[in-house]
Amino acid sequence: MADIGVPPTPLQSLLERASAIEGQLAQGEDKPFTEVTHCHTGDAVAAGHQPLTFLRQVGAMCAYPELLDAEHMPADAKERVGRILQRLQGGSVGAYNLEYVTGTVAKKVAQYLERRDGGIASDARCVVPSSGTAAAVVDVISLVVDETAALPTAVLVPVPGPRLHGAAAGLAGAVAVPYSLAEERGWDVDGDAVRQALQQARARCHPKVLCVVNPGDPTGHVLSRQSMEAIIRLVAEENLLLLADEVQQERAFLPDRPFLSFKRVLWEMGAPLASTVQLVSFYSLSNGVGGGGFRAGFFELVNIDPSILKCFYTWGMSVYPSILGQAMLDAAMELPLPHEPSYQSVEEHRGALLHSLAHNARLVQEVLARAPGICCHPLQGGARAFPRIQLPPRALRHAQELGLEPDVFFCRELLEATGIVVAPGSEFGQPEGTHHVGLSLLLPAATLERVLLTFTRFYASFLRDFS
Amino acid sequence: MADIGVPPTPLQSLLERASAIEGQLAQGEDKPFTEVTHCHTGDAVAAGHQPLTFLRQVGAMCAYPELLDAEHMPADAKERVGRILQRLQGGSVGAYNLEYVTGTVAKKVAQYLERRDGGIASDARCVVPSSGTAAAVVDVISLVVDETAALPTAVLVPVPGPRLHGAAAGLAGAVAVPYSLAEERGWDVDGDAVRQALQQARARCHPKVLCVVNPGDPTGHVLSRQSMEAIIRLVAEENLLLLADEVQQERAFLPDRPFLSFKRVLWEMGAPLASTVQLVSFYSLSNGVGGGGFRAGFFELVNIDPSILKCFYTWGMSVYPSILGQAMLDAAMELPLPHEPSYQSVEEHRGALLHSLAHNARLVQEVLARAPGICCHPLQGGARAFPRIQLPPRALRHAQELGLEPDVFFCRELLEATGIVVAPGSEFGQPEGTHHVGLSLLLPAATLERVLLTFTRFYASFLRDFS
Repeated sequence: MADIGVPPTPLQSLLERASAIEGQLAQGEDKPFTEVTHCHTGDAVAAGHQPLTFLRQVGAMCAYPELLDAEHMPADAKERVGRILQRLQGGSVGAYNLEYVTGTVAKKVAQYLERRDGGIASDARCVVPSSGTAAAVVDVISLVVDETAALPTAVLVPVPGPRLHGAAAGLAGAVAVPYSLAEERGWDVDGDAVRQALQQARARCHPKVLCVVNPGDPTGHVLSRQSMEAIIRLVAEENLLLLADEVQQERAFLPDRPFLSFKRVLWEMGAPLASTVQLVSFYSLSNGVGGGGFRAGFFELVNIDPSILKCFYTWGMSVYPSILGQAMLDAAMELPLPHEPSYQSVEEHRGALLHSLAHNARLVQEVLARAPGICCHPLQGGARAFPRIQLPPRALRHAQELGLEPDVFFCRELLEATGIVVAPGSEFGQPEGTHHVGLSLLLPAATLERVLLTFTRFYASFLRDFS
Repeated sequence: MADIGVPPTPLQSLLERASAIEGQLAQGEDKPFTEVTHCHTGDAVAAGHQPLTFLRQVGAMCAYPELLDAEHMPADAKERVGRILQRLQGGSVGAYNLEYVTGTVAKKVAQYLERRDGGIASDARCVVPSSGTAAAVVDVISLVVDETAALPTAVLVPVPGPRLHGAAAGLAGAVAVPYSLAEERGWDVDGDAVRQALQQARARCHPKVLCVVNPGDPTGHVLSRQSMEAIIRLVAEENLLLLADEVQQERAFLPDRPFLSFKRVLWEMGAPLASTVQLVSFYSLSNGVGGGGFRAGFFELVNIDPSILKCFYTWGMSVYPSILGQAMLDAAMELPLPHEPSYQSVEEHRGALLHSLAHNARLVQEVLARAPGICCHPLQGGARAFPRIQLPPRALRHAQELGLEPDVFFCRELLEATGIVVAPGSEFGQPEGTHHVGLSLLLPAATLERVLLTFTRFYASFLRDFS
């Protein structure tokens, strides 16, 4: 066994340094700041948001059903738990229960999807509850990889975008081909850029999958119906599978740019596209009402024969999920109705998160608009902003001397001077010659305001120091 | 996307039929039995065992920390939860918390392993908490696969044995090479059989891993120290990595054949083996005190540079586990001590499970010893018996006409006549020309007794019918 020595990602390196600084602060070392502030995360609960009480109550009672007798648990949560435990082998989340997952949960998800998409039918046999998104994406890409072909199978992935899809392509035996999002159009998908990437790639690989992330991460863009229709026509013409990462779907915070699922837009385009374009859409409880860490999600196949799913249930690595996570997914697909006791608190919780994202997005845009050298596109959804920062030539040279990407150098200097962690643009990829940072919209507003002021002040002094 | 059409395993087919029969019974169809009895499972909770209250209380309070105020929760469970939540980002299991997993949980596991192995040091940096065993085995095998080599990398897997290891080898890009266990020695590992498999394999692949399952599944064998030493010398001579599936370690139920970890035996063999043989050992909460379904486990690397682990934490699919599962693993590694309030109930729970396994193992051996044509080896651990059944030549021909393996044919006939589901030997593999069935030792004793009587009666009539 050799030391493979995979290098840490730019953000991982920065977090290691942040952790070391926290140690130094704890030992009383003198710094120009008193604490490290993490302003990079897409994880709502890590950023301080309260979890959804209703779901936690369901989880707790599923784990320890004796709590069904507790007076302080609400009737609707008890009712859900009663129904869930009835469907489980041994009446317990402590058994594998694959039938519960593929039967009960898949049906509940299909019903949820029908409501989400205004009544468009969803077939439970085409729904695969999974253990988080990462392994599920690997499994889905594995289905299209042809290891016997002369050219490797390729997956087109957006830049900037989550590292997940490219890494998953590699693990599935495919290669990732980046395509650039259109920064000048708020990081919209640019059909010409996709076609250009396709054309260049075809000499050395066989592109079979187009991955689109909507709402965008880290870009904060929510696709318009028009853009989605153009993407659908493109995958039809180019004979690609559309892999829609829609895990941020519950975080579209601008009322005039609501989230639309690719499935709905495809269906509403009518024949022949609606019945031919192959689509796989991913949902994650982590980015939805559930908060991360429960490892539950699902994906839905559209225009794909569900018999292909057999291979998942034989040895797919993304299935056999945590049954407690699945029970919480089950409950998340059927949140309390207006007549139920937890309705109001659930609605308030969801409203508060969206309100906070919208407020923070406005704040980021307002503060950064006043900062010369920084340009932030309009934010519409998701949990991050990805503003562009101009870095002076002397900073670029300095970074090069240190063997660092310029944005990584900037983020390190920011951390050392202010204790603030933001994600270097290289973590997500960025257009050649440009530099960005990823900022979390999930912090408490007061913290974010303080971070933004410190950040813009530091940036101004950085420009002075390196000009 | 083509229909891959992976065929179901022999047991999966049987379970599909059992499910259909349950539907027929529910609709009032007349059968020679009134219910389907599942006598194949290794899943304790599915078989009716109660989960461990202490762990469930910990899980419930982690999910819904408001329960820390509940009077009816014991102080030791509350204390564990208080400490766990302190270590979590946002004080919540709803965040990803990789640092908790790789730091706190890994350290807790290392301390547990030191106690288990009589004080032999365990390095937390070599412990990888994971999301269940299957994906972890894939990840570990992936580390040794050389995709650029002329010959494919091979993993030696025991027959009979769980399907997991062979399937994992395939998913990791390796090939599985079966080696036969010695049925006449109670399914002990036979060094000559391993060497023979190695020799034959080397013409077409490059064997790098020997997989050993101890306690054996479905064999019920627990390896002696002598056998383990022989295996260690063999992997040293043949330069193999020893992949020890020790997930059944808490189910060794014969006092005179206790479970010994490969790590301990290796260490006690002293230099030079103790410091050179490469070993990875797997543990699963599912087969331990936790019950299945929580998707938590770990593996420990011995004599392997922990820097190799970096690749897991970059994009390993087995990590990023359910944090609630990890919190329960954390608590399982530190069960109540004698002075703590839950101590007695935890000890009773563990004792009851072992007592029940030992009782059922005796019952199986006694009843089957009286049945001509059936031969059951001595049972020492694990959750299954794997008796050999002679099938008459006419039954073999009949099965062949139906295109079925003879043991699958027998199990189908048994199901149709009695409603009893046992696992066909082909599910686990078996020596050429022999036939077996896998019986669960986890059923309630009264149910198992009834199953065994019906089973032996049916077998006798089957022999008559086909002789």
